Order: sequence, then C-alpha cells, then structure tokens
Amino acid sequence: MSNLPETMQALILQKYDGQLELTERPVPQPASGELLLKVAASPVNPSDVMFVVGQYGFRKRLPTVPGFEASGTVVAVGEGLAEAQWLGMRVAAFAGREGDGTWVQYMTVPAVSCIPLMENVSLEQGAMSLVNPWTAYAMLDMARSGGHKAAVQTAAASALGRMMLRLALQADYPLINIVRRQEQADLLHSLGAEHVLDSSDPDFPTKLSKLCRELEATIAFDAVAGDLPSQLLYALPRGGEIVIYGALSEEAIKNLNPGEFIFGQKKISGFWLSLWIANLDMKQMQTTAVTIQQQLGDTLQTEVRVRSDLATAPAEIATYTENMTAGKVLIMPNGPA
Amino acid sequence: MSNLPETMQALILQKYDGQLELTERPVPQPASGELLLKVAASPVNPSDVMFVVGQYGFRKRLPTVPGFEASGTVVAVGEGLAEAQWLGMRVAAFAGREGDGTWVQYMTVPAVSCIPLMENVSLEQGAMSLVNPWTAYAMLDMARSGGHKAAVQTAAASALGRMMLRLALQADYPLINIVRRQEQADLLHSLGAEHVLDSSDPDFPTKLSKLCRELEATIAFDAVAGDLPSQLLYALPRGGEIVIYGALSEEAIKNLNPGEFIFGQKKISGFWLSLWIANLDMKQMQTTAVTIQQQLGDTLQTEVRVRSDLATAPAEIATYTENMTAGKVLIMPNGPA
Repeated sequence: MSNLPETMQALILQKYDGQLELTERPVPQPASGELLLKVAASPVNPSDVMFVVGQYGFRKRLPTVPGFEASGTVVAVGEGLAEAQWLGMRVAAFAGREGDGTWVQYMTVPAVSCIPLMENVSLEQGAMSLVNPWTAYAMLDMARSGGHKAAVQTAAASALGRMMLRLALQADYPLINIVRRQEQADLLHSLGAEHVLDSSDPDFPTKLSKLCRELEATIAFDAVAGDLPSQLLYALPRGGEIVIYGALSEEAIKNLNPGEFIFGQKKISGFWLSLWIANLDMKQMQTTAVTIQQQLGDTLQTEVRVRSDLATAPAEIATYTENMTAGKVLIMPNGPA
Repeated sequence: MSNLPETMQALILQKYDGQLELTERPVPQPASGELLLKVAASPVNPSDVMFVVGQYGFRKRLPTVPGFEASGTVVAVGEGLAEAQWLGMRVAAFAGREGDGTWVQYMTVPAVSCIPLMENVSLEQGAMSLVNPWTAYAMLDMARSGGHKAAVQTAAASALGRMMLRLALQADYPLINIVRRQEQADLLHSLGAEHVLDSSDPDFPTKLSKLCRELEATIAFDAVAGDLPSQLLYALPRGGEIVIYGALSEEAIKNLNPGEFIFGQKKISGFWLSLWIANLDMKQMQTTAVTIQQQLGDTLQTEVRVRSDLATAPAEIATYTENMTAGKVLIMPNGPA
C-alpha cells in the first residue's frame, strides 16, 4: 500500500435533502476479506436520485457517501486474501446496505461481492454493468419464463429501457415500448423497435389496449408511476400483471379501477434488483454475470452524456435529476480512465 | 305444471342506469336439464348494486332481470329430470352469466347449479347462502391456507364483514376489523371482535400499521377502494398483499406509494367469487356447500332489515344503495314464505 495517498476526495450526503458536499477523507484500509479499489467510474442512476432524498428502499446512517455501483482496480487487499491473485484486477462492485457508497476515490468492498471484469469490458462500461443490465436482464427473464407472450415497458427511452428493447429484439420477443415524446419514439424506431406508443397521444389508451390484446401482452414493467399504471391496468388483458420498478414521475400511483383487480383478475407487484439477486445461487450469479458482460459492448451498452470528476458531479447530478432522458452522468473520481 | 299461473311479475332493467321496472311476463318453461323454481327470497347485495349500473364484471343483454342469488321450491322439471326426485325440493340457486336473474316470481335454472337446502336452513337464510357466505369462507380460507398469521378486513360491519369476523372468531384466527364509524366499532365489539379500528380516527394509519406488524397481518381484504388501499399498503408488513373484492366507496383506488411495491414487495390483487368457485371440483363444491349450510343459522347468518315484495323493491333498493350498512333488503317475490 506504499504508493497510496493518505487522503482522498469523496462526495458526502449530510442530510436526505439531495445536497452533496465534496470533502477530504482518509483513504480507508481494507479489513479482513476486503479489497481496496481505486474507483475508475461510477454512474448516477435513478436509484441514486431516490436514495439522496431518502426515497430509496433503505437509508444509511448519515453522513454517508452515495453511489451504488462502480468499477475500479484492486490496489490493496485485506487479511486472508492473496495479493498475487487480486492486485491489479479490474472489477465491478456494488455498494452494500451499510457503509459508504461509490462516489469516492478509494473504497473498500468485500472480495466476494466483486465481479471481475472480462477483458472485452472497459472500466467505463464495467461501471454500469450491474444496476441497469441486471435489471433489464432479470425483467425480460421474468416476462419470458413467466409464460407471457409479450410485455410492455414504460420509460422505454431510458438507458434501462433501451437495454430491454435490445434484449427483446435479440430474443425476438414482442415488446411494447411506451415513451412520452415523439423524439423518443423516433429514437426507439431507429434502434429497431416495432411497437412504440407515445403516452402524450390522445388515442394512447385505446392504442395500448388494442396492441396489448393483439400481442397478448400480459405483463407490464413500469418505472414512471403517476397516471401510467392506471392506463396499463386498463389495457392489459384479463389476468395481466403490472410490475413497478421505479417512480420517475415522482408521483403516487393514481386512480386505479377496482374492477380491474376483481373482475379482470389483474395484479400489481414490484421489482427490486437487490431481492432478485438475493434469490440467485452462486452458480446462477456467475452465469448471469458472464452472460451480461458478454453483451455490455452492444445489447447492454449505456450511452454516456457527460463524464465528470467529483468536484463537478453535484452540478451534473442536479441536471440529470431535472431531466433524466438527457443522458447518463458518469463520475470518474480519479480523472479520465 | 297444471297449477302454475301463465304470467308472473318481474323486475326489469331496461338500461344500465339502476332504474327498475315492475312488469308482467309469461312464466318460463324449464328446458331440458332445467328446473322451474318458485322464488321464495332473493337478497340485494353490493354486487347487484354494481350490476344495475353496469359496473359489474359482465353485462347481460338488455332488457334483463337482475338479482344473482335466490332460494325457491322446485315446481316443474325439464326433460331428462325425474319429477319424483325434484318436485318440492327447496334449493338455493345462482343466476348465470346469461339469461334472467332472480328478482322474479318464477325462474328456470340448470339442475346442476342448484344447491339443495338442508333441513335446518330456512328459505330466508338459504336465499343468502351463496354470495356472502361463500365469499367470507373463501377469503378466510385464502388467508389461512396462504400462511398469513393474521388478516385485515375493511367494511367489517357489512353483512359479509360480520361473517368474516364470526368465522375468524370461531377459528381463533386474528382479524383486524376496519370500520368507518364509532357505532360500527361498538357493534363489532359486541359480537366479540378484539381488534377494531375506526378509519375516521386521526391516528388510524399509525394504529393500523402498529397492529399489522404486531399480529403479522400480511393480507388485507378490501371492499371499499378510495383511500383505504393506500393506507393498507402502508400498514402491511414487507411482502403484504391487498385483495380487492369490492368498491363500496364507488371511488377509484387512490395514491399508492410506488416504493411499497418496489422496496416493500407488497402486492395488490383481486377476488371474484365466480372464479374462485370455478376452480373447485364437484367434491370441493359439495363439501363447502355443506360446511356453509351448517353454519347459516349462526356464524354465517345474515340480519335482514326489510322484507319487500317486487312492487316495493325498487324503493328499498334505492335506500340500500344510499346506505348499505342500514341492513339487508330481502325480496320475496311471492309474498312472505
């Protein structure tokens, strides 16, 4: 650890008010079974936006460093780990429920929760290889293995939505893509999407209902909340299910018709990646990780709008929070990789 | 069939506007495999109130006779049925998806869908032996066989709610009963209820949440819609499920927090008795019918507020629609039994 600095920069959340502060902290020491990563890159995801205002599935003790996923290089190992095996390894890591997150120059992480990056995966794409790709992969798997002949997704122009689209195209699986604006529809058509509906179209509910019944789309993934779940519930055929996995509108779910549940036998449930992963065994984890990394260069790629250091990140995060479809912010705490 | 009149009285729905008309019609002839019943009694249930305004799970071709359940005596049989076996039998009957309903003096019904009444069951209680008792029985069965340690019900002072309460007390199964007014709470306490919450209490959400967690109530049956499902969703522990089976408020389901689905892994589904029954085999049907009839005199009894003939029924139905907790209206198309 001789070449490591004593202090580092970190973005700190003092209150659940979304305000981030750049501070100086000591570089942490890896405990037994832990690795110290020099963080290469860490994205800003919708889940981070929820976390910093206290709306995520859990809160951490404050002050804390936000950020859920990152890539990095192993620069030190804790007791019980062989330097020869680990030092210099490029990995993707997910921050746990406790302790600091990824918007920092150096972070410690249990070796068992690091995913080694394959040669073809860049540190940039590796940094975004967990949250969105795993969610897209898991949801498409739910739709297909659940026997649904087709699926619907909202927020289809988001980074995750585009992954879902490309995975569905690759699998020749019918997917109805819902967007909010015409230019998003154009974008998805340019990526090869066949079924794109614009929710600002006055005929949207009728078109959605017709298409769901034609394609027998009996599952819908919603990341928006607000009025969309009510429209999805109406449109899905008998027995259809809505899976809520986000709330980009920052609104409650409004005005559901009770008859859709009673007589239509429709359902609403939720998807949380942490729980989906917790249900995988080690072998499934590894197989999924490899499958996903093999596709990070194309099907599961993420377009980056801006690369930012820690100092400029708060302003970029604010811009992203205002308009997420503007594109992904990638924080590079140690400068360009 | 020599003693039967040629014409009879019936309540007719011309449009799905809730307006009923007393008309004269020919007494129908039972077709092959059908029975002709002289209708003794038929209740007005919340499902009827939904049906006459077109809000039920299906609509019938108009004009039609509403009414879903009745009791009666077999007065004629169709081809293929032995008079000696059937004539004079007291039965409960459920009107099907097609054809006329039960608010009529004589009705035809397939013999296979008649449930013979046991000796201890009066024609009055037999008339109300299907919709509510079967729903209460089915929902309590769902809660217990689903491994839920306790359950919640709204509209707990309704005829069905009281049946749920008595079934739960009998089974020593913890049930949280939600009512809207103090006098309803008093009523349920007088029936032996241990856990009664008044949703008009300002502390209701907190009390409900505390009680759900204490008793590990992970399933809630809602017949109200409006704001209640949102409060239930908040109160249920992780993984909890709301089952919608009615919409007494005549409102949509409002303002659900998306995080409850995502992070709380909670669910909303619906219950429709027709579908539950369709999943039973003949043996289960018979066992359930006997179990229920044995309890009609006590646990599954219904208190009747008013007995009405067909002529005065429209006014009584209007009163009931205004205030369902005022008590059950029982239509007796051929006068007092």
